[in-house]
Amino acid sequence: MPQLSKRISTLNGDGSDGWGVFYKARALKAEGRDILELTIGEHDIGTDQAILDEMHRAASAGHTGYAMVPGVDALRDRIASRVSNRTGVATTRDNVLVTPGGQAALFSAHMAVLAPGETGLFIDPYYATYPGTIRAASGIPHAIATRAEDAFLPSFDQIDGAARDTNARSLLVNTPNNPTGTLYGAETLDGIARAAAANDLWVISDEVYDTQVWEGAHVSPRALPGMADRTMVVGSMSKSHAMTGSRIGWIVAPEEAVSRLIDLATATTYGVPGYIQDGALFALEQGDAVEAHVAEPFRRRRALVLDRLARQSVVTAIPSRGAMYLMLDIRKTGLDGETFAYRLLDAHRIAVMPGESFGAAAAGHVRVALTVADDRLSHAIDTLCGFAADLSEARVASGTMA
Amino acid sequence: MPQLSKRISTLNGDGSDGWGVFYKARALKAEGRDILELTIGEHDIGTDQAILDEMHRAASAGHTGYAMVPGVDALRDRIASRVSNRTGVATTRDNVLVTPGGQAALFSAHMAVLAPGETGLFIDPYYATYPGTIRAASGIPHAIATRAEDAFLPSFDQIDGAARDTNARSLLVNTPNNPTGTLYGAETLDGIARAAAANDLWVISDEVYDTQVWEGAHVSPRALPGMADRTMVVGSMSKSHAMTGSRIGWIVAPEEAVSRLIDLATATTYGVPGYIQDGALFALEQGDAVEAHVAEPFRRRRALVLDRLARQSVVTAIPSRGAMYLMLDIRKTGLDGETFAYRLLDAHRIAVMPGESFGAAAAGHVRVALTVADDRLSHAIDTLCGFAADLSEARVASGTMA
Repeated sequence: MPQLSKRISTLNGDGSDGWGVFYKARALKAEGRDILELTIGEHDIGTDQAILDEMHRAASAGHTGYAMVPGVDALRDRIASRVSNRTGVATTRDNVLVTPGGQAALFSAHMAVLAPGETGLFIDPYYATYPGTIRAASGIPHAIATRAEDAFLPSFDQIDGAARDTNARSLLVNTPNNPTGTLYGAETLDGIARAAAANDLWVISDEVYDTQVWEGAHVSPRALPGMADRTMVVGSMSKSHAMTGSRIGWIVAPEEAVSRLIDLATATTYGVPGYIQDGALFALEQGDAVEAHVAEPFRRRRALVLDRLARQSVVTAIPSRGAMYLMLDIRKTGLDGETFAYRLLDAHRIAVMPGESFGAAAAGHVRVALTVADDRLSHAIDTLCGFAADLSEARVASGTMA
Repeated sequence: MPQLSKRISTLNGDGSDGWGVFYKARALKAEGRDILELTIGEHDIGTDQAILDEMHRAASAGHTGYAMVPGVDALRDRIASRVSNRTGVATTRDNVLVTPGGQAALFSAHMAVLAPGETGLFIDPYYATYPGTIRAASGIPHAIATRAEDAFLPSFDQIDGAARDTNARSLLVNTPNNPTGTLYGAETLDGIARAAAANDLWVISDEVYDTQVWEGAHVSPRALPGMADRTMVVGSMSKSHAMTGSRIGWIVAPEEAVSRLIDLATATTYGVPGYIQDGALFALEQGDAVEAHVAEPFRRRRALVLDRLARQSVVTAIPSRGAMYLMLDIRKTGLDGETFAYRLLDAHRIAVMPGESFGAAAAGHVRVALTVADDRLSHAIDTLCGFAADLSEARVASGTMA
């Protein structure tokens, strides 16, 4: 076999991605074991039947040929008006490219702004695909480590310093945030905007959780003064409408950038199924109430978890303001997140994600997805806290407490 | 706006892509004019209702969450057995990655084999996205020009010479061929295999027309001795099952390459809708008869066009053995393909693609897609030939004949 490109051979970095717990849980489940999975961001409901029926109606009516590569006009218009309404930034069809999912949008945005060998910044902790996405675009991923003590919020100084050190071209941010559940407020956003302007950065803003906000309000970096010209927003139907498997998302960007992104889409995907776009348009036309309905279980379960956590003092939560996850600090157990997660899985058949799966900054934490029924979630949190308390006590008893 | 990457800004090369006739025809049609379009490779039938019903059944049954990134196991197995049966090369699930369409497969294959700045070879005439696909992968596209007199078949010497001149890493071939309708025979395939071995090339073999063979048999380069280790085959449901809009295809490659391609898919697309995969599996399970049924109109219309052409001597066809197109030589008119196509559109509201749209090697030709009803096609060909004859006669009369 001839050599493969270095780009594709090194996509996973050092290869220790911390997803072993997830795969072990899946393997146990495949063996028929009853595993309580609080791992990935997959709704416990499917896509609404009315949306699926609309897709089928559109396909049966003949929308099965090539769709226009930039996306169906009516859907581009609808996305544009949704973004205009939510952010106050004038947005038209020409600012929108429909993509086969948010991940394709993340990749395409980095392809558009990074030349091979240029640096793309991102915030640690991070969604698992981020460094590989930048590597796939032949860029060099550079993590900006945040601290649990700062609720994992990045500061101007951190971003500006990293941009100067690396001569970076782009900064990838995600608010509401996966995996931490934080929401970027005015100070954080102002720091991002100032650092972007000072270093002539593109900001790639992953906003796929923008309908899952529990405290405060989501503000898009694109809405800050001067930022619409240097921001590419990544959106998706996955989280807002429980359409993860339909692979439909978008990029909102300056017109000139969208024009070039359409060229890229022609060479990389050749568009998105027309009948899925019709289903997405139908879903968006149902309005905010549908999105609130899809988000409601996560809002309720977050409150439920915070209530359970308030009854003990070993496990604490990073301040959670959005998204379908909670990041729990388990450092009082003396274990790293990965060891804790493996032991919890072995002892109680409960699967959570080690913080380390999302970067070094989240070491000593575990991420809990709010994606199981309320009673099972309560049980899981109580079990996790009891397990952590036992570990913590044993540690105190053996005198290993720092 | 900060700069965009050079890669994305130069994706279209010099920008003169020869698709002006196509866009003009579409614009006239949008104005309500009756245009006879023989331009793009879009079936005049939609996707079979039974396939659409199966997708809807699968989605309604709950297959709407994230599908496994490499593809659904059952579909990978089915594609592997299909390839094994057709080519005689042992192929398993681990040799198969399901992709969101053939274009995504073409792009991913080039991402896997080219480092930034390395050369990817392709054969001229070519499908319009080929050079942009190689540029999107940060590679340098290099065309190997073939000659109408050779039925646009490339020779060992041509490939070997180009590979040596450019230190190329890959060769992209397409048989049955779009736009020429040629089918690579034993001598051509042997030349490809020898040149690939001599220059340690990856061969990326676009075989999306493998069910549209009118004379002879389709042979995959992967089936030649020693070639399975250096070939990536691109397949798709688009042409074989009239599923162009569903964006589902695949790559068949060595296991190690597929393993890396899965990493790339995780970072670039994150898989293909599960219910579309279920629909594709259902379609493949219907067997060869369905594929023959979808191909039949093109077989019949090709014969029809050859019959009409036999009645005159101004326009001749490149030997056509496969695919849903015929490449017609109109050089006796003294016009280039683009001028001829524009004049034909203006005079008779018939739209064909200039050969130049597919590379310099096809200058003086036009491509006709066999994608309209038989009677309209007959009328279009007779009109085209009459138009060419008038041009040719006028040319003789004015003494400009070479």
